[in-house]
Amino acid sequence: MSASETPGAAGPADGQRGLFITLEGGDGSGKSTQAALLEKWLTQQGRTVVRTREPGGTDAGVEIREIVLHHRGDISPRAEALLYAADRAHHIETLVRPALARGEVVLQDRYLDSSVAYQGAGRVLDPQQIRDLSLWAAEGLLPDLTILLDLDETTARARLDTSRTRYDRLEAEKADFHARVRAAYLGLAAAEPERFLVVDASRPAEEIAAEIQSELGRRLPASR
Amino acid sequence: MSASETPGAAGPADGQRGLFITLEGGDGSGKSTQAALLEKWLTQQGRTVVRTREPGGTDAGVEIREIVLHHRGDISPRAEALLYAADRAHHIETLVRPALARGEVVLQDRYLDSSVAYQGAGRVLDPQQIRDLSLWAAEGLLPDLTILLDLDETTARARLDTSRTRYDRLEAEKADFHARVRAAYLGLAAAEPERFLVVDASRPAEEIAAEIQSELGRRLPASR
Repeated sequence: MSASETPGAAGPADGQRGLFITLEGGDGSGKSTQAALLEKWLTQQGRTVVRTREPGGTDAGVEIREIVLHHRGDISPRAEALLYAADRAHHIETLVRPALARGEVVLQDRYLDSSVAYQGAGRVLDPQQIRDLSLWAAEGLLPDLTILLDLDETTARARLDTSRTRYDRLEAEKADFHARVRAAYLGLAAAEPERFLVVDASRPAEEIAAEIQSELGRRLPASR
Repeated sequence: MSASETPGAAGPADGQRGLFITLEGGDGSGKSTQAALLEKWLTQQGRTVVRTREPGGTDAGVEIREIVLHHRGDISPRAEALLYAADRAHHIETLVRPALARGEVVLQDRYLDSSVAYQGAGRVLDPQQIRDLSLWAAEGLLPDLTILLDLDETTARARLDTSRTRYDRLEAEKADFHARVRAAYLGLAAAEPERFLVVDASRPAEEIAAEIQSELGRRLPASR
């Protein structure tokens, strides 16, 4: 990440290749806020940034997502996993890889770690099979950096409860599910410390953004 | 296939389980005609028959098929394979397995062998990976019997040409593609002779139907 040092080297022709950064974390962990701050910073560094997300980052993906949502409760678990993988395959092939080939930075909200963590928390299908399926769909593409916005369930619950007055069984189940998703995410990060940056997401947004920028500069090779 | 010998044993409670029969072959090989004749015969034997097809055998499947067709040429090969696998997963889970559990006969137009043979003929993705993907989608369900309606390319071309006056390069390519699909099908049948019944589809429909009925009686255990 030395785009600021070599401002002229903005294209792949100069040996600079694209950068694939994914943001992970539970709902309410601040992924959108951090993506916006990171995009702004990267743009200031002279990088061209493509913000995208899964599922639904392409036209076909939106249609696929419609099927999953429209048929919720009716779609079999394997069919749902395959539909998300189809969305991923199309998105990576038609949007992410071309941008990386142009030397751009792809900043993506959720990728294969979401599939694995949420599947692991739901315990319907084998998380390892979900990972294999995702990697087959994406022809093995892994992010250069995955930022995990880690939030303990107490804080997450407090954020969720801000606009609510009642606390029922469903909320308790949600807290339990959140705890399982969090544990799954932390397990994935521990298994791939080089790829993951785990950030304490309970702090102020600007503080988190500063840590991400600092780590980006430290972790990513100067040639990028 | 001794339903005619034990007419009272029509349900799984009597130890009779369902029967999963698939029909395979190129376009114009007569699958629909044979499916209709076989359904009639099985019904006369006292069996309850469910006629179905892939892709598009369910409501969700029709929507999935719409995406594949609507975005043709634009959907990445892996996304397309995953969409067909999603259709398969949903179809098998929600329609085929329940019918088999009720002791019924499922008569299905195209299944995983179509995916493997057509993929093998198109040579975009590895046919073995397509087979693995299909089996993961279907949780390993293989047909009790697969009827391959085998038709040489000359006869297939003659049938296709009946209503045409011109013969162009596209037609020649189609004939070549048909030959590759046929070779792929025959390879699959040779690898699993117990599951496949290869039938010469150039003969009259009634003659083919008689052979299928005879083979069904011979191949399938009396307990079914």
